[in-house]
Amino acid sequence: MAAPRVVALLGTGLIGGSVGMALRERGATVRGYDRDTERVVHAREIGAIDVVAATVAEAVHGADLTVIAVPVGLVAEVVIEALDAGAGLVTDVGSVKGPVVTAVEAARPHTVGRYVGGHPMAGSEQEGLAGASAEMFQGATWVLTPTAATDPQAFAAVRGWVSDLGAEVLSVEPAVHDTIVAVVSHVPQLAASTLMNVADAASDQHAVLLRLAAGGFRDMTRIASGHPAIWPDICLANRDAIVATLDDLLEELARVRAVVAGAERESLLDLLESARSARRNLPVGIPVDETLVELRIPVPDREGVIAEVTTLAANFGVNIRDFEIAHSLEGRAGVLVLVVPDDRLDAYEAALREQGYHVARNELG
Amino acid sequence: MAAPRVVALLGTGLIGGSVGMALRERGATVRGYDRDTERVVHAREIGAIDVVAATVAEAVHGADLTVIAVPVGLVAEVVIEALDAGAGLVTDVGSVKGPVVTAVEAARPHTVGRYVGGHPMAGSEQEGLAGASAEMFQGATWVLTPTAATDPQAFAAVRGWVSDLGAEVLSVEPAVHDTIVAVVSHVPQLAASTLMNVADAASDQHAVLLRLAAGGFRDMTRIASGHPAIWPDICLANRDAIVATLDDLLEELARVRAVVAGAERESLLDLLESARSARRNLPVGIPVDETLVELRIPVPDREGVIAEVTTLAANFGVNIRDFEIAHSLEGRAGVLVLVVPDDRLDAYEAALREQGYHVARNELG
Repeated sequence: MAAPRVVALLGTGLIGGSVGMALRERGATVRGYDRDTERVVHAREIGAIDVVAATVAEAVHGADLTVIAVPVGLVAEVVIEALDAGAGLVTDVGSVKGPVVTAVEAARPHTVGRYVGGHPMAGSEQEGLAGASAEMFQGATWVLTPTAATDPQAFAAVRGWVSDLGAEVLSVEPAVHDTIVAVVSHVPQLAASTLMNVADAASDQHAVLLRLAAGGFRDMTRIASGHPAIWPDICLANRDAIVATLDDLLEELARVRAVVAGAERESLLDLLESARSARRNLPVGIPVDETLVELRIPVPDREGVIAEVTTLAANFGVNIRDFEIAHSLEGRAGVLVLVVPDDRLDAYEAALREQGYHVARNELG
Repeated sequence: MAAPRVVALLGTGLIGGSVGMALRERGATVRGYDRDTERVVHAREIGAIDVVAATVAEAVHGADLTVIAVPVGLVAEVVIEALDAGAGLVTDVGSVKGPVVTAVEAARPHTVGRYVGGHPMAGSEQEGLAGASAEMFQGATWVLTPTAATDPQAFAAVRGWVSDLGAEVLSVEPAVHDTIVAVVSHVPQLAASTLMNVADAASDQHAVLLRLAAGGFRDMTRIASGHPAIWPDICLANRDAIVATLDDLLEELARVRAVVAGAERESLLDLLESARSARRNLPVGIPVDETLVELRIPVPDREGVIAEVTTLAANFGVNIRDFEIAHSLEGRAGVLVLVVPDDRLDAYEAALREQGYHVARNELG
């Protein structure tokens, strides 16, 4: 399907900017609007939009498609504003759908058919325009949440355009979407932050505690290091699904606690086996799920080691997923710890050895 | 410090095999014993040991060092068996320390001085001998848990050998070690499995749920995919610390649930900010430009000095780089010589003085 001819882009952050770039690459003319004038001007400078619109009405006038990429707490009101301004087809990229779709349906029952809720599960809403890329949606899953009120032609058009950006489109009911993201994204985020806070509190008693936090702990708390600014909005917008999922997690954790306290070996093994089996059966999505391994490479104290090791990885098509420098006893020398996919690794390891490095490979759970 | 001449290695799995390889590389003769004959024979085939011993007694006879690398539930009994068989110095690599150290002290009060509890925080206990590597301990942290009963010379020798394998040695009280690993390893493992089970249960309702599990969720549940076989032993051995930490996690998660349910935006932002800050401050390595100084601490001939001085260092975040016992001419009292970085030293020195030690500081280099 050809790209829309004229697109109104309301909101020009990371996801909005990426949508603009991807659509422009496919021939669309993109009119950008943002309440933050500086940002929308910058979006034009980096080629995310063609022209800056002064108002929502100016942006949507005569556009084939209006894409709304504002913070999740503002989506409903901007969708309504766009519909009222006569926008032809409207979609959004917010990470909560139920309350937005419900609010628009209640407020604009006669025009809501032209709106299709959307959520590209790509990138991170936490980054600025600097991270925008036309390639962001290649291979990503893009959820659309059509409802009974959705105009079929509107849905077909939006679906075609989204899929043309390289995304795999999945249609899900708005409330189901919200439950799913509560389970796979919002509650994991809260759990990661909570685990980090518990460990941090314990480290007040035991100064060395966090020094002993190795790979598993780092994996589990990695997402806690992102900018929290977007999360209050998301948590309020998706409050019901998040609270329900937190209740499930609390109940299940309390059961684990009882099993450990009661030394119920078989029950403990059962629940760990179930989790293992479920984790190993996680669907291979796009991009393909990879088996990661850890490479430990003791390195001498000399310049250029990091550049050498990492550019060599790129030369051999090995994607470094995680990178850390662990120290050794001898002061300034250290050990590079790389987490990489296990395919295409042999040639890279051989090349490292040829350069005089010692490489130890550890399988990761 | 030179490697031990003859080593008895009791247990030849991943960690045991790696210890054997690393010690052999440094010139030791390693005698392996394992209840699983097939495994110990395989250990010899892949060069993890030199000879297969038929019994524990045969392995430890005349050995300078006995390393016990059996499943955590068996460590205490094998330590006792080794001590009874006349082993000179004994250490282990189990991931729980308090109950083991307590059991050995209670059962063998007269020979426990020759045993130093240990836990190399490297590799994964979940993998077999195939993953063994002489490089495994390069840059890893190796915890030792000396107590008042520990013989100072035994500690100094074990510490030197371990540190010669490339590991950074940290002395911690056994109970503190167990709390720390509950927080940074055991409870994260249980939390990862629990989160996976909650998501898996939710996916019964929503078939596409797990297809939408992206990077963050995968990171958080990665360790749930490991073999669970070792965990019942670990959870039973470290039950008290794990239950206490699970209680902390449950309490904190319940607070998060209340904050989300109550739409308390500021509290939510606060807890996410704290977690972010803690995660970003996770120690990743030693400052490359540290200045080392030597501390000389004359110590009286009384029990527990080594444990006190070294675990106090860990409490104050002071990393002991080198450790030696210099003996004075006047009999059994001696001088501890520690090499440590010069930052964070004042608080440690003050604490030592408060405990009645005299500390002399020498600049090095």
